[in-house]
Amino acid sequence: MSASTTPIPTRWVGPLHLSGNAVEGPVEVPLATYETPLWPSVGRGAKISRLVEGGIHAQVVGERMTRSSLFVARDAAGAHRAVTAIRGRFAELQEVVAGQSRFARLEEIHEEIVGNLLYLRFALTTGDASGHNMVTQAADALMGTILGWDLGLSYGSVSGNFCSDKKATAVNGILGRGKHVIADILIPHDIVETHLRTTAAQVTELVVQKNLVGSTIAGALRSANAHYANMLLGIYLATGQDAANIVEGSQGITYAETREEGLYFSCSLPHLIVGTVGNGKNLPAVEEAMVRLGCREDREPGGNARRLAAITAATVLCGELSLLAAQTNPGELMRAHVALER
Amino acid sequence: MSASTTPIPTRWVGPLHLSGNAVEGPVEVPLATYETPLWPSVGRGAKISRLVEGGIHAQVVGERMTRSSLFVARDAAGAHRAVTAIRGRFAELQEVVAGQSRFARLEEIHEEIVGNLLYLRFALTTGDASGHNMVTQAADALMGTILGWDLGLSYGSVSGNFCSDKKATAVNGILGRGKHVIADILIPHDIVETHLRTTAAQVTELVVQKNLVGSTIAGALRSANAHYANMLLGIYLATGQDAANIVEGSQGITYAETREEGLYFSCSLPHLIVGTVGNGKNLPAVEEAMVRLGCREDREPGGNARRLAAITAATVLCGELSLLAAQTNPGELMRAHVALER
Amino acid sequence: MSASTTPIPTRWVGPLHLSGNAVEGPVEVPLATYETPLWPSVGRGAKISRLVEGGIHAQVVGERMTRSSLFVARDAAGAHRAVTAIRGRFAELQEVVAGQSRFARLEEIHEEIVGNLLYLRFALTTGDASGHNMVTQAADALMGTILGWDLGLSYGSVSGNFCSDKKATAVNGILGRGKHVIADILIPHDIVETHLRTTAAQVTELVVQKNLVGSTIAGALRSANAHYANMLLGIYLATGQDAANIVEGSQGITYAETREEGLYFSCSLPHLIVGTVGNGKNLPAVEEAMVRLGCREDREPGGNARRLAAITAATVLCGELSLLAAQTNPGELMRAHVALER
Amino acid sequence: MSASTTPIPTRWVGPLHLSGNAVEGPVEVPLATYETPLWPSVGRGAKISRLVEGGIHAQVVGERMTRSSLFVARDAAGAHRAVTAIRGRFAELQEVVAGQSRFARLEEIHEEIVGNLLYLRFALTTGDASGHNMVTQAADALMGTILGWDLGLSYGSVSGNFCSDKKATAVNGILGRGKHVIADILIPHDIVETHLRTTAAQVTELVVQKNLVGSTIAGALRSANAHYANMLLGIYLATGQDAANIVEGSQGITYAETREEGLYFSCSLPHLIVGTVGNGKNLPAVEEAMVRLGCREDREPGGNARRLAAITAATVLCGELSLLAAQTNPGELMRAHVALER
Repeated sequence: MSASTTPIPTRWVGPLHLSGNAVEGPVEVPLATYETPLWPSVGRGAKISRLVEGGIHAQVVGERMTRSSLFVARDAAGAHRAVTAIRGRFAELQEVVAGQSRFARLEEIHEEIVGNLLYLRFALTTGDASGHNMVTQAADALMGTILGWDLGLSYGSVSGNFCSDKKATAVNGILGRGKHVIADILIPHDIVETHLRTTAAQVTELVVQKNLVGSTIAGALRSANAHYANMLLGIYLATGQDAANIVEGSQGITYAETREEGLYFSCSLPHLIVGTVGNGKNLPAVEEAMVRLGCREDREPGGNARRLAAITAATVLCGELSLLAAQTNPGELMRAHVALER
Repeated sequence: MSASTTPIPTRWVGPLHLSGNAVEGPVEVPLATYETPLWPSVGRGAKISRLVEGGIHAQVVGERMTRSSLFVARDAAGAHRAVTAIRGRFAELQEVVAGQSRFARLEEIHEEIVGNLLYLRFALTTGDASGHNMVTQAADALMGTILGWDLGLSYGSVSGNFCSDKKATAVNGILGRGKHVIADILIPHDIVETHLRTTAAQVTELVVQKNLVGSTIAGALRSANAHYANMLLGIYLATGQDAANIVEGSQGITYAETREEGLYFSCSLPHLIVGTVGNGKNLPAVEEAMVRLGCREDREPGGNARRLAAITAATVLCGELSLLAAQTNPGELMRAHVALER
Repeated sequence: MSASTTPIPTRWVGPLHLSGNAVEGPVEVPLATYETPLWPSVGRGAKISRLVEGGIHAQVVGERMTRSSLFVARDAAGAHRAVTAIRGRFAELQEVVAGQSRFARLEEIHEEIVGNLLYLRFALTTGDASGHNMVTQAADALMGTILGWDLGLSYGSVSGNFCSDKKATAVNGILGRGKHVIADILIPHDIVETHLRTTAAQVTELVVQKNLVGSTIAGALRSANAHYANMLLGIYLATGQDAANIVEGSQGITYAETREEGLYFSCSLPHLIVGTVGNGKNLPAVEEAMVRLGCREDREPGGNARRLAAITAATVLCGELSLLAAQTNPGELMRAHVALER
Repeated sequence: MSASTTPIPTRWVGPLHLSGNAVEGPVEVPLATYETPLWPSVGRGAKISRLVEGGIHAQVVGERMTRSSLFVARDAAGAHRAVTAIRGRFAELQEVVAGQSRFARLEEIHEEIVGNLLYLRFALTTGDASGHNMVTQAADALMGTILGWDLGLSYGSVSGNFCSDKKATAVNGILGRGKHVIADILIPHDIVETHLRTTAAQVTELVVQKNLVGSTIAGALRSANAHYANMLLGIYLATGQDAANIVEGSQGITYAETREEGLYFSCSLPHLIVGTVGNGKNLPAVEEAMVRLGCREDREPGGNARRLAAITAATVLCGELSLLAAQTNPGELMRAHVALER
């Protein structure tokens, strides 16, 4: 093996003007990407945010990290008996997790029985860490404890794919994984027309016809957007995240309304996996980005990670808005690409 | 905006021993990732490939790139009349595409009508380019031509999300997008036991219980694997790909069988989006990686890209095999992470 | 075993006023159901159709029946070699099918390889029969022929679930199964307001917020409607269909637009499985229903089945429109149920 | 409108030998269907149940009925504030529901915010009723109460498709709707070979290759079975259920293992919608069926419905086992159909 680094072209875009329950004020965001037209695209959205009172509002409405473990029983009745016992000893399991890290807390266990197979999905809060390792370690310990209870279960796998990590599934959106953030903005009609060269009605219609109906016929799963994955990749790479989590991060919903006051535009991201500490976060470039993003401040546990999640969702909104506006006009998308890549 | 680069830790792993219709012989592969335990994990799979006659076999069984455009008719009857006319003039549309690039060829148009909305999904072969821009440019031109035919259609969007790009959907697997590659290997039992510390029966069982059943209850879509996204991200970043395409790349199926001769293990990736030319491919680090991967040779059009796709699929197999083997043993996964990240 | 019948309450509703490429004029439709509020609900939609010039337009845009067979190869390369050979002998396979029934015609084979497994999805046109048995019989014969070619394949299963029958999947919508029908109507604003007690804007908004966004968060698959299954069940039972096919029939998309002229409302049903001959169609009650529906006329092959499909789609539209209109008003749905069930 | 009934051919099959937490002993089951080969198919499974100690075990592991209502806020922050307030007044909402019916109890509210849209999914237990009307009525009342709290919300729809009723979605399996039942059986090898003309290994392999892998490539959603819908339709029609609920009922998972003692075979049905009282249940034929099924006994609330759910799941297992066994043998399925339909 030979060690080195791959340099990914990176720019800071913005500032975005932000408000909400996890961030307030102007923030510049770094985007590391080979797809450099992303920079002006997000930049155009950021400009809109600066023109609108309050900018983009980002609301963090939930957070957790999960790991599902697989146990094998003799039959469904055995699995059911075991899960009933496990539910009754939830407090003991919480102590097991609490004993592992002062930031980890077991919030919920969700089970599913398939034949004789028992899947337990452990949900934890993990402070400022995204929590991949914390939940795996917790699952290891929880499995040990549960297997020690002699409930007729045997080891299946520490991860049973009901977690689910870096796969496009429905469970994460419904039960939660990572941060759940909704970013929205209300843009006066004149700004839509002048700076996005479109109208609220055109954007609203495109959101329905492309993001909702088009995604439906494509067979999309809990997903109705144009390109969340692009913005997520850019900010994930620049901030040392496990960028493979853009897989589930890409599942989110753009929803717009034409109102008398202007265009209401929102991006809902139910499972943003981000952290400000942990694996990859102590590399110099990442450290520097975190400081500049204001994510190295002294906040309550999880506060820096929530800030990063809110910033990320707002960045997604900028890029999504800009692309959709462009696609309402024939030829605009390609002209922009051609101009930028030369 | 300020420009710089984000350095992603990168190692070359292997060599993998490969065979198949697009690559033959030993190949080292670069993995750019913050999740450094990936290196020894893929490395362990690579070692297995060197111990087995023929190594990993990677079969490229299809290739294309797509873009779907949205047209708006007055009603369903109008959309149907239009699509009937369009089908009848397919040869003209092929000429439009051929006139744009000598590497682009229109292979198929797949349509769907929803009410008065008409979605046309254009499928092209694009030589050694992954083809994102080539298909957008083609779609622009095709839309122009079709709208010029006065079929009662108006412009909806150059991209109607039926493509679909960087979203988890079902359409790409069923109709194809990118390279369709299947990697497989038959590993003698003694090698499974000595080098993977497990048995064929245990791996086969875990593939069913975790990848197939576990993914099913998670509500996965055309996806049954442990962590394809990790390997894809590593190799995509190191080779200048548009790494947001790991979203759909992550949808693939691991299938295993316990045979008398050993463990049959396969990874099927129906929509690997890779290219060896185009956007991001001329950066020095990427150029260097391409040369070392043997993807800068003088081959028939598309040959270098198919080689890269085959290598990528085999790399996915290495990491998938290694992780699944580890998860058959209680505690092994976490111990490996802890050891490696210190 | 003791034999008897279960009597399902049945009413003829309508007439619906219909137009399109498979039906023209007024048609009454039978609905067999325990959920009797369905009758006035569909009846209200039917009334709308009689008030609008041209009524409901139903466009049949495709038809086929499918069965997928599973073959087992030694490895992916073997499966690929086999499928290449099979593609080259498509004409021979067409003859095999043609030799079985003068109504059966092999239109397409769609394949997918997963590891060493080869799934071949055979698509046939089957005249006026829905074609379940015809395709199973054809698949049996095709498997026999293919296995006789010594391509290194062995028998897996005559049905490999890639068909797919009576399961909610994405493949049927994308590749087709049954009749693909779109029903639509343009309702003047005054009729919307007087007879549906709502507005075009309210219906359009509800279609987006409930059918599209609500279905998306529910994790729906290629499906965005309120209750297609209810109408399908009613008409399927009354016409001797295999009513378990409402499973895939329920997957369809309601799309609406508020236009200057009124409410544009459409129901797209990509995989309606209906037939007018075959199993269950010669029972007296069914025979009588077929006659009354005009589906026992002397038409070109498939013409009666297409007529039935068009009528079915229009019936779906009636019930869907009526329920959505009701749900725009607080309390209306429940009041209607309470009134009707007493 | 003209009133009548549609007679569906019906037979009682069995008896099935059953055990579990909701039923014990022999039970015959009625199947109303046009697809008469279903009778001997389920009959063969029933025979197996009589040959095995304990027969089929059916475990009811959960129950609830749901309705999701849609509220519209001004923006995401407003929706979040509202939902926080609603969560804090859960006990008041429970009282609203309790005041409506002595069988209805509000168990849980699950929310999701998309932009400014707030979806609340109310989960109730509903005694022996399947509960469609009970939850709609409850949702009406709950909406009235919540809208009266002046939280800045307005009425969207009493049903927001996040319920979800008669649609194939992921939410019902993950959060529950209807009865969650797992049926399983362990069949000695000699019985498998003599009475099913196959082997445990062949059945296990087919379950993987067809139900799991085949369904995956078909793009199935939380579903891996051969034909649950057929058995569900038969028993639903014969017992006065709202048979359109076979749509979600069809989503379930068959899982099998080859063990030293024989074939372990299971059918997991996470959302069986059945009731023994309510709409359609007082028709004479239904009443008679309920009595014969032992579902008109004096049991604790919900006990008759759980019994019916357990019987239904076991019936599904009989038909699933029989069909899969048949499909392991080339030609057997078609020969059976041909023989039976003549």
